[in-house]
Amino acid sequence: MALRSVWLQELTWEDVADYLKDNDIAILPVGSTEQHGPAGPLGVDSYAAIALAEDAAKETGVLVAPPLWYGDSPHHLEFPGTISLRTETLVAVVKDVIRSLAHHGFKKIIVINGHKGSNNPGLITACRSLHEYELPDVFLALADPMYLAKGIAHIKDAVEHHAGELEISHVWYKHPHLIKPEKLPSNQVDLTTIMSEFTNNDLLGKSGDTIEVFWNSREQKAFAPNGSFSDSSKASPEKGKTYHEYMVKNLVKFIEWLRINNGPVGGM
Amino acid sequence: MALRSVWLQELTWEDVADYLKDNDIAILPVGSTEQHGPAGPLGVDSYAAIALAEDAAKETGVLVAPPLWYGDSPHHLEFPGTISLRTETLVAVVKDVIRSLAHHGFKKIIVINGHKGSNNPGLITACRSLHEYELPDVFLALADPMYLAKGIAHIKDAVEHHAGELEISHVWYKHPHLIKPEKLPSNQVDLTTIMSEFTNNDLLGKSGDTIEVFWNSREQKAFAPNGSFSDSSKASPEKGKTYHEYMVKNLVKFIEWLRINNGPVGGM
Amino acid sequence: MALRSVWLQELTWEDVADYLKDNDIAILPVGSTEQHGPAGPLGVDSYAAIALAEDAAKETGVLVAPPLWYGDSPHHLEFPGTISLRTETLVAVVKDVIRSLAHHGFKKIIVINGHKGSNNPGLITACRSLHEYELPDVFLALADPMYLAKGIAHIKDAVEHHAGELEISHVWYKHPHLIKPEKLPSNQVDLTTIMSEFTNNDLLGKSGDTIEVFWNSREQKAFAPNGSFSDSSKASPEKGKTYHEYMVKNLVKFIEWLRINNGPVGGM
Amino acid sequence: MALRSVWLQELTWEDVADYLKDNDIAILPVGSTEQHGPAGPLGVDSYAAIALAEDAAKETGVLVAPPLWYGDSPHHLEFPGTISLRTETLVAVVKDVIRSLAHHGFKKIIVINGHKGSNNPGLITACRSLHEYELPDVFLALADPMYLAKGIAHIKDAVEHHAGELEISHVWYKHPHLIKPEKLPSNQVDLTTIMSEFTNNDLLGKSGDTIEVFWNSREQKAFAPNGSFSDSSKASPEKGKTYHEYMVKNLVKFIEWLRINNGPVGGM
Amino acid sequence: MALRSVWLQELTWEDVADYLKDNDIAILPVGSTEQHGPAGPLGVDSYAAIALAEDAAKETGVLVAPPLWYGDSPHHLEFPGTISLRTETLVAVVKDVIRSLAHHGFKKIIVINGHKGSNNPGLITACRSLHEYELPDVFLALADPMYLAKGIAHIKDAVEHHAGELEISHVWYKHPHLIKPEKLPSNQVDLTTIMSEFTNNDLLGKSGDTIEVFWNSREQKAFAPNGSFSDSSKASPEKGKTYHEYMVKNLVKFIEWLRINNGPVGGM
Amino acid sequence: MALRSVWLQELTWEDVADYLKDNDIAILPVGSTEQHGPAGPLGVDSYAAIALAEDAAKETGVLVAPPLWYGDSPHHLEFPGTISLRTETLVAVVKDVIRSLAHHGFKKIIVINGHKGSNNPGLITACRSLHEYELPDVFLALADPMYLAKGIAHIKDAVEHHAGELEISHVWYKHPHLIKPEKLPSNQVDLTTIMSEFTNNDLLGKSGDTIEVFWNSREQKAFAPNGSFSDSSKASPEKGKTYHEYMVKNLVKFIEWLRINNGPVGGM
Repeated sequence: MALRSVWLQELTWEDVADYLKDNDIAILPVGSTEQHGPAGPLGVDSYAAIALAEDAAKETGVLVAPPLWYGDSPHHLEFPGTISLRTETLVAVVKDVIRSLAHHGFKKIIVINGHKGSNNPGLITACRSLHEYELPDVFLALADPMYLAKGIAHIKDAVEHHAGELEISHVWYKHPHLIKPEKLPSNQVDLTTIMSEFTNNDLLGKSGDTIEVFWNSREQKAFAPNGSFSDSSKASPEKGKTYHEYMVKNLVKFIEWLRINNGPVGGM
Repeated sequence: MALRSVWLQELTWEDVADYLKDNDIAILPVGSTEQHGPAGPLGVDSYAAIALAEDAAKETGVLVAPPLWYGDSPHHLEFPGTISLRTETLVAVVKDVIRSLAHHGFKKIIVINGHKGSNNPGLITACRSLHEYELPDVFLALADPMYLAKGIAHIKDAVEHHAGELEISHVWYKHPHLIKPEKLPSNQVDLTTIMSEFTNNDLLGKSGDTIEVFWNSREQKAFAPNGSFSDSSKASPEKGKTYHEYMVKNLVKFIEWLRINNGPVGGM
Repeated sequence: MALRSVWLQELTWEDVADYLKDNDIAILPVGSTEQHGPAGPLGVDSYAAIALAEDAAKETGVLVAPPLWYGDSPHHLEFPGTISLRTETLVAVVKDVIRSLAHHGFKKIIVINGHKGSNNPGLITACRSLHEYELPDVFLALADPMYLAKGIAHIKDAVEHHAGELEISHVWYKHPHLIKPEKLPSNQVDLTTIMSEFTNNDLLGKSGDTIEVFWNSREQKAFAPNGSFSDSSKASPEKGKTYHEYMVKNLVKFIEWLRINNGPVGGM
Repeated sequence: MALRSVWLQELTWEDVADYLKDNDIAILPVGSTEQHGPAGPLGVDSYAAIALAEDAAKETGVLVAPPLWYGDSPHHLEFPGTISLRTETLVAVVKDVIRSLAHHGFKKIIVINGHKGSNNPGLITACRSLHEYELPDVFLALADPMYLAKGIAHIKDAVEHHAGELEISHVWYKHPHLIKPEKLPSNQVDLTTIMSEFTNNDLLGKSGDTIEVFWNSREQKAFAPNGSFSDSSKASPEKGKTYHEYMVKNLVKFIEWLRINNGPVGGM
Repeated sequence: MALRSVWLQELTWEDVADYLKDNDIAILPVGSTEQHGPAGPLGVDSYAAIALAEDAAKETGVLVAPPLWYGDSPHHLEFPGTISLRTETLVAVVKDVIRSLAHHGFKKIIVINGHKGSNNPGLITACRSLHEYELPDVFLALADPMYLAKGIAHIKDAVEHHAGELEISHVWYKHPHLIKPEKLPSNQVDLTTIMSEFTNNDLLGKSGDTIEVFWNSREQKAFAPNGSFSDSSKASPEKGKTYHEYMVKNLVKFIEWLRINNGPVGGM
Repeated sequence: MALRSVWLQELTWEDVADYLKDNDIAILPVGSTEQHGPAGPLGVDSYAAIALAEDAAKETGVLVAPPLWYGDSPHHLEFPGTISLRTETLVAVVKDVIRSLAHHGFKKIIVINGHKGSNNPGLITACRSLHEYELPDVFLALADPMYLAKGIAHIKDAVEHHAGELEISHVWYKHPHLIKPEKLPSNQVDLTTIMSEFTNNDLLGKSGDTIEVFWNSREQKAFAPNGSFSDSSKASPEKGKTYHEYMVKNLVKFIEWLRINNGPVGGM
């Protein structure tokens, strides 16, 4: 049966019941509403998660749950418009959504995080706990541009951190009217002077020895007053397209593997 | 300044900072992902909240936060596709979103609930607690079709309960392709035989003496096997338009009052 | 067997074991300790719940659990003597009490709330969650004067809101020495000027389109300095008696229905 | 000013405001609803706390908050009628009540526990945490028959444990119709054979070296099938009177000390 | 099989698997990191719990879980170095550790608390709740010097309260280099003048009628500026040895009883 | 002043007060008690954290808080001896310890995690939340062998995952008697066949595009029956020494930077 839509919220419960006769995979896109510098909209991370989920779903015919628009963004709260969930709230939402999906018979659920890394403590906590204590038979996975796009990172011209060239390009490709090209910053925050040499300026690059330093929103406002950490002046819709398609290709490959995966994880 | 969009997620943080120079109202739409019978999509309540928020915002020039697609729907969990948050999770999300908005200087926040009544225990809990203990200076209000549309309920032909004529009409008007007209049920569940005479079949009608009886998802599946409680065979996009515009008009009137409200609630 | 008392706390465990051989209904009265203006005692809501529970129990021979004297009253905290539970505390208490009763074999539990509406978010949250996730086979219901007495509201002379004519009359009838007649206020707070036209001054009257506005204790102290929202100068023990007996009659009718109720809710 | 009643719930908020002009002490009685063998009512512990609070208050002119009828009684849940709060629920209730009292200006609060020892983990947790982190200037104390009556314990004829001679006598004195004298058990459970020699059979007696062993409700049902641990055949209203008056005298002495206490605890 | 070590953390999982073939007892030492006056190290309570656990284990051949170094010490927080867990955190840790041990087949677990009394509300809460609701078949016990050493308390020369003669002696015996003998205080805080006559100066002595008064860290700093409540000038390693061996002997006796205990508690 | 010990628990509160006159850095070692294959003790991760903390502290003269012996290890629970905290428990403990240290005036706290990666969701959650919402002026950092030793990973002969060559070597160097050399496994679990090609077999090596797959303890027992994922047959105390000293050198360098760090993070 061809789905009328990959989005669960557009279907009736009978449509979903039909889908579950032959399918058991669902995708959950998790984003954030968080400042992304002077050129990017607050929804960048959500648009990323939604685009990856939707396009991977269309290619593979799997269902996507409605997106979560809010993520774990305390360190951006000094910038108007940022909406941040406490980590425990994020954990609770994601657990409840996955519990609901599992209740209906979804057996393999892929969380797609658009919020590079920052949501991961909450998302990992939710998935690990559910899989050990509540849903041992439900396969859970977590995909994130920060880890999914290492192989394509070479297309960028600058180091990539918050509001960087690639994530700006990504939204530019998908929602051209939401980027303000004239405001793309060309400055670069050098995090190693701020948080020691054991810090990595490039989330998508190679990393040496690192020690994680925590910064809060007031500190961030001080060291990155326009909200962007990275030079995104070389961002472009074309780069966004290449970046997006690379990640979709990886996700499709993973979903295809998952369809036939027969354990020991998720197939026991 | 004219906003490029009423949706906060489409703006940059600088756009929001500009808005806050002269404005302090925000709307938060809260929906659900929950079965709505054989003809309505799972997203009915979210589409309702989003449409009300967006159109009231456009008329008044206020900002809308990204919607919450999941609500408090345990009693529908036997129908595939329903996603339900625990009440405490809903409380936590709404508190965190409102805290974030208040942090930026939003002083008047209107929660629009699309999920007739069912989200209200959580939404009231969040708002009441925040306003007493954390945000005494932030005005909080809760609007809901179940209470906002009493005056227009006379346009319907049937009693209105879950998946009823008016909420189906509402989505039909806004998203015609998401309704399956050929599946609109004409049966009516008589709740007074199931939950005593102290039950009201019509959420939008007049009510006599009532006692609330709690039913769970297995019981609901038994007494309403197709998921709809109400006859929606007389639903139509036209009715949806009338219903929608009536509620938007009420919301606009409320927002206009709110702009000039000078306490004692919210203006002290 | 005739019970020595309808109050569970006055019986031995063996008495309760005997009762459970042929019965499975229990009533839980939930009140509040909250200012009720210059004429009414802080315990008004608790006295209401206790009186309704006790008299309905006596007529039907069912057991009553000990009352909860504290409710969800944050908005009254500026008035000395008010004791307020956080909503989550109220939820926890009510869940634990119901779990205990269910553990012993009570299968049908009626919560009687004396605190017109204000406890309901917590009480609904507790009951709905228990019935879906923990006690699917235990019938739970919630009765409240605000919904139980619509049909008798016509006896009052004034609009009825907090500390109104009927609830004062109710306690006056049951505990004459606890009312100070000389202090009954004749003023009326017009909530529509304070919280917009979408507010209803009469909790027991008809309502048009409404939007809920949240007020906190400091705001309430400002707009209702004596603690009463309503004119209760026409209160009387006679009205209290009529009001009380009407509600007891409704409760008795409900309990009689419940004895023979055979599902689908609570009888599966 | 003479109070019309020592019970806060019987007063108006203005009465409490008057009281607070010259006074700052309140008593909070905490009981339980828990089986007390074949002869004692489920409310024994609550009656004990209420009686101690009321009589000490009458002698000293201090106010008493409404009682909490439920306590921490998981180990009695196999006996019908027992209602048990989780410890965290008890903590939450007691914290909320004390926070409310402190908000109004009560500066010295005495919790009277009727549930010998069993409520203490929760009560201590609530008081210690509040006093350190939230209410450093509010004096908090905890009185309990198990510690308050050591000096009068010699009047009993048997060792005293759950449902023992003295607590039965206590209720007998105060509520004669609630005891079933013909059912007073004369057997004694020897806890040292069940939980090792490091156990004390007499909660009100001298104790040697002890190690606490935890038993649950199923185990208790096995080792004390009638619910009583102690021989209460020598209980009498007279003993109850002596026991009660001794404890009231201690409480009065403590309250008198507290009135003039000038720190360093509670008077800084 | 002789264990290579009584400490679980020094063994491999296969060693533990071997142990569990013939054994089912484990000990969990719980201490605190809390000021113990000018002469005692912050770890006194942890050293006490560790020493008791280790030596009782060596004599009986049972396993010891790694110690918890932090306890419930809010009232000491004004003294640098004190680390205090919230009671609910302590409950959570102890529950998780016991759940893990029970998962592997440990059926009898003895918690040894080195923190005289102060950890007990949390430890009792954890054990009682686990044993009633989650682990009805796992025997749980709690040993504490405050109750374990009544019979040897006569060897001390002073009353014993916080940082008293016996607990200082205990650590002196086991870790001589951690005591500063030249700083042993000879003053004694008279708690009865500070917290009423219903207070006991000697935690290891006889007690009359008592009422518990809660003090916080600022108050404690005021009434016991050097951190010690008791005269410990007569402390000595020899007393520590006698005290330690007496408690170990009691623990060994208890463990021997436990090996052959056949219910009804823990043997059903 | 030279510290008598780098371990806080060995000092008196006066020693800590002295330290704080000129210093404000503390280290908190966090480990786990978790199976590490047939050759490694359950305490491997704790020994790693303790050794790194102690040796870095000795070189720099900073204080170390007592270690936490338990971590977040649900996926190892099928192996006897593993003790796992829920993530929320770990968060609570670490928050309470850091709050206590900050209360005394420690302004820069370094958490050293010995449990490669697995504790990080909890540790990041604790630190990020504290630094944003409670302790904006306290510098918090997180060091972990998985990120601290990239530059020395080339000394190993095999890919490194759970119970791998380097962490076994690490403990072997520090606690030679705790390793069973004859049991060192030479097999290697190929995780890419189990969890897709988007998995990395080498936690200390380079990584391509990855998607995180969650496995539970039963699945792990199936795919790694002896508990080790990696070939550790080439482990040696010498490698452990090189690995350890490299990480200590990095930590010392970081602490030296931290002493003179003047913001914007941690120095504002």
